[in-house]
Amino acid sequence: MGESVRIAIAGLGTVGAGVLALLDRQSALLASRCGRPLQVVAVSARDRSKDRGTNLNALEWYEDAVQMAREADADVFVELIGGADGVAREAVSAALAEKRHVVTANKALIAHHGTELAIRAAEYDRTLAYEAAVAGGIPIIKAVREGMAANRISKVYGILNGTSNFILTTMRDTGMDFAEALAQAQSMGIAEADPGFDVDGVDAAHKLSILAALAFGSEVRFDGVYVEGIRNVTAFDINSAEELGYRIKLLGIASLVEGELEQRVHPCMVPKDRPIAAVEGVLNAVVAEGDESGPIMVEGAGAGAGPTASAVVADVIDIARGNLLPAFTVPAAGLSRLPARPMERHVGCYYLRLTVRDQPGVIADVAAALRDESISMEAMLQHGRANGEGEAVPVVITTHETVEASMRRALERIARCEPVLEAPRVIRIETH
Amino acid sequence: MGESVRIAIAGLGTVGAGVLALLDRQSALLASRCGRPLQVVAVSARDRSKDRGTNLNALEWYEDAVQMAREADADVFVELIGGADGVAREAVSAALAEKRHVVTANKALIAHHGTELAIRAAEYDRTLAYEAAVAGGIPIIKAVREGMAANRISKVYGILNGTSNFILTTMRDTGMDFAEALAQAQSMGIAEADPGFDVDGVDAAHKLSILAALAFGSEVRFDGVYVEGIRNVTAFDINSAEELGYRIKLLGIASLVEGELEQRVHPCMVPKDRPIAAVEGVLNAVVAEGDESGPIMVEGAGAGAGPTASAVVADVIDIARGNLLPAFTVPAAGLSRLPARPMERHVGCYYLRLTVRDQPGVIADVAAALRDESISMEAMLQHGRANGEGEAVPVVITTHETVEASMRRALERIARCEPVLEAPRVIRIETH
Repeated sequence: MGESVRIAIAGLGTVGAGVLALLDRQSALLASRCGRPLQVVAVSARDRSKDRGTNLNALEWYEDAVQMAREADADVFVELIGGADGVAREAVSAALAEKRHVVTANKALIAHHGTELAIRAAEYDRTLAYEAAVAGGIPIIKAVREGMAANRISKVYGILNGTSNFILTTMRDTGMDFAEALAQAQSMGIAEADPGFDVDGVDAAHKLSILAALAFGSEVRFDGVYVEGIRNVTAFDINSAEELGYRIKLLGIASLVEGELEQRVHPCMVPKDRPIAAVEGVLNAVVAEGDESGPIMVEGAGAGAGPTASAVVADVIDIARGNLLPAFTVPAAGLSRLPARPMERHVGCYYLRLTVRDQPGVIADVAAALRDESISMEAMLQHGRANGEGEAVPVVITTHETVEASMRRALERIARCEPVLEAPRVIRIETH
Repeated sequence: MGESVRIAIAGLGTVGAGVLALLDRQSALLASRCGRPLQVVAVSARDRSKDRGTNLNALEWYEDAVQMAREADADVFVELIGGADGVAREAVSAALAEKRHVVTANKALIAHHGTELAIRAAEYDRTLAYEAAVAGGIPIIKAVREGMAANRISKVYGILNGTSNFILTTMRDTGMDFAEALAQAQSMGIAEADPGFDVDGVDAAHKLSILAALAFGSEVRFDGVYVEGIRNVTAFDINSAEELGYRIKLLGIASLVEGELEQRVHPCMVPKDRPIAAVEGVLNAVVAEGDESGPIMVEGAGAGAGPTASAVVADVIDIARGNLLPAFTVPAAGLSRLPARPMERHVGCYYLRLTVRDQPGVIADVAAALRDESISMEAMLQHGRANGEGEAVPVVITTHETVEASMRRALERIARCEPVLEAPRVIRIETH
């Protein structure tokens, strides 16, 4: 049995306590798999007295994570504090400067400062590992960085936020509208009291920017992600999707288009028979499309203490086994800087939901607006009629492929049509 | 850029030619990801003159793979010959004896001799890598050995044979019976002229025994796999499954039950809403259940030159990057020898299809046979009646959990009932 791997853990919230418990519970198994024991030597958190279900007496205690990163006698610094800046960033930088390997579950940190930290880690010849930052317990970082390393990857996409997927699944299963499904998710502890980070797509955008860097060997560009959440998806949209043969999912999609990096998070209509359409409830799933392997999908729990701890400790095990890899597939100094493709140039099919006054000529006005932007309609559905002429009715239109900028101009014109009563809504259709 | 990794490739069939082509096409990308070039130095095959779409002139040529394993100046020996014994086994042993790393796509070899070869590799401090042997391009070996390394795994199962899955999917989509769907698969090149290896479950059993060793850190025990193929699945069964809320899939399932290793390959009824039920056509998928991560599913192409080459080269990349891991998660000398759990002691629910003469009292006889073995019926379906009393009709019965041995005794008695016209068929129901 080799020398023990000495670990310092910063942050003892749900995940931190989960990692401590896992390392304790599985210590014999982990030692046999690594050929050496994994030993926690120090922890840091704000409140020492809080009960975390584990005895911390044998460990060095720090109130200051940065001080621990500098001073604790550890080979691996595990950062579970969270937040893109502040203590987390300072502590990780300090740990790298002391030539410690860093393992983090902090997606905001990697999304905002991943490139800089990867370069720093490479300079010190240390690992920056972040499996837990994307899709919890699912080993998607490893799958892309190593399992698909023989492939050029052209596209990576996924269901990256379990809360949103739960809400969309609940809406479909029960017919609830967004607000009601959100309230149910909150009552079950699946959504937070302030749900914006999840339902407005920011969390998914963090993860997407990390996946893109990994898949394309490029700098992390969170600022280049187009982000749109699920608040405007209605029960009516969910039903329309079913009728058209689609499911609505909040996807993060990154792809290389003409040498530019397109990154977008928004609700999508996905054909029902696609594997990603069958991913339900709080589950996450990521698909990476390799030129040799074809699409590979990995699916599982994207959050929770156990799954996240599983991913954190997998990174520690890699370090213990001596698997030291560049953070984003290629050496950090060689990361490319891809130009961001603006959303205006996105090409795809669209679903439009209009609320119009039920009167002759409305559809003709809408059709003319689309025609003038060279947008070709695929289908139009207007179920049922209002109780009387002149009342509000929903109209659904799907289009063939068009450019986002044209669609936006058409929507502006449609919104100005007098019988169009509410702002038109679009959901992008993903058929590729 | 570091020193090149020197590769010898034995076997230039579809996969071998695919590996050569991939290494050629992606050489710059691979060098940047590995920090060193991957260089093929020697190849062996029976017929040098055959056109393989690649120029072999610059490579050392061997007719004898074993000689190449001994003599070629290579760091990595890639075995793509196939077969559990004979040249493949001899060449791999010779390569290890020369302290070369071995990468193989040969599931029969690993299923039959994996333990012995892993021990040999460990003695020589070399890698025995076999990602391509299980589920083609899907990085399931890496996901279990590394991504889920912090977990105790209690169960691993999957759709491990694309040909069988294609046939079952076709039967469901078209209403065809087995023979017709097989003929269609053959005409499309998805099934071989002699399809036994695929449709009788042997191929899936090879892969399952490898997955089990990896998941449980135990010796490979192909001899302990219960194997049953899909030839007896009928269009009627497919319809009954739909009606009962199931899909029929050929699964390989390995689990630890009371310290014993249960390994089985057979058609299963799986609840429709389970992720594995949505895996269609030639796709493969594997689910591993970790105690921390929960179930993780990996899905993708399980065969074909591109996907298989992708997995072979991923193993070579691991070696080039210096990621040298024990073949089955723990050091080979520490592999446990788990007792094989006989199928007679399997506990589960069952679907029974009987063909009986339509006359009063038949169900009472069948029910009595089940009752006398303490088997509790869950449902009984007898749709439609024969044209006249006394003609053949199908009857479907589903049961609650019972022991396989009891079910077999009950089936023997049922088969002897005079109005039962054909041997009763069972399909096991997987609800866990």
